[in-house]
Amino acid sequence: MIIEILRLGHRKERDKRVTTHCALVGRAFGARGMYYAGDPDDGLERSVEKVNGSWGGDFFIKHVSEWRRFIDEKKKQGWGIVHLTMYGIPLPEVQARIARLERSLVIIGAEKVPGEVYRAADFNVAIGNQPHSEVAALAIFLDRMLGSMEFNITFSNARIRVIPQERGKRVEALDL
Amino acid sequence: MIIEILRLGHRKERDKRVTTHCALVGRAFGARGMYYAGDPDDGLERSVEKVNGSWGGDFFIKHVSEWRRFIDEKKKQGWGIVHLTMYGIPLPEVQARIARLERSLVIIGAEKVPGEVYRAADFNVAIGNQPHSEVAALAIFLDRMLGSMEFNITFSNARIRVIPQERGKRVEALDL
Repeated sequence: MIIEILRLGHRKERDKRVTTHCALVGRAFGARGMYYAGDPDDGLERSVEKVNGSWGGDFFIKHVSEWRRFIDEKKKQGWGIVHLTMYGIPLPEVQARIARLERSLVIIGAEKVPGEVYRAADFNVAIGNQPHSEVAALAIFLDRMLGSMEFNITFSNARIRVIPQERGKRVEALDL
Repeated sequence: MIIEILRLGHRKERDKRVTTHCALVGRAFGARGMYYAGDPDDGLERSVEKVNGSWGGDFFIKHVSEWRRFIDEKKKQGWGIVHLTMYGIPLPEVQARIARLERSLVIIGAEKVPGEVYRAADFNVAIGNQPHSEVAALAIFLDRMLGSMEFNITFSNARIRVIPQERGKRVEALDL
């Protein structure tokens, strides 16, 4: 399954760290890229591109101005729309149906998500029905839908990579 | 297994949202509570207590002033020390050994974690060896070690609970 992310309601000051975490989780867990709506944020985009520059791959980060139209377009192109929300149906109950999608757009909100997103979604999915974190919800969703790819993922054009250690840090520089 | 969390290096302004996410993930995924070092932060503590007040349970959040001594004390009391870091050994390779611990303290850092934490830890564990998010790392760790408890957890003394919906939100008020 190809997965892309749409982060709604990004506020440059308040959300910059959490939105960056969302993007890096998307990249490290196997999504193709992340769109975000709300404040355009060069710093956010630069952070993600800097990670690509060192650690490889071509995970994209792109601002969208009109997210309603964007979602409509994706639907027309045949993408399944999955909205992660604590009010939705627990993932284990819908995972098999979601797994049949070839391409899915996963929507995560910053704060309150408009009702029309719940209506536009093919699946409103809960990673548990308690309040916690869209970063965690995204991680668990990708872990389940992409077969725990975070433990095996590799990226082309990486300049550095970690050599796992029992203690301390070891990073290897790669010749490109 | 009983799991408690230690969040290192909390900076009140910069980290307040991410540290709150860590605590809420700890609560929603079955940890007992979270200690944090760095700036004392009443707002952080109030946010977590407010969630307990509505959604139930007694997940604790406590500031520790001297985290080095605190880790030493925990070790003396027989707690296993697990440090989540992208430089560590991938969880699948050490999960069975960690599962034998009765009580573990899971350490997550805000930014750069001092070398002594790597040395003090019984396990330096990676949720993948790519840069991403301590919120996501904590979520995956708890999901794996506590049997995906996030999908079944219930809390005593909850005032409200979600009734999962395919579309929209439904919250039920509970009589205490």
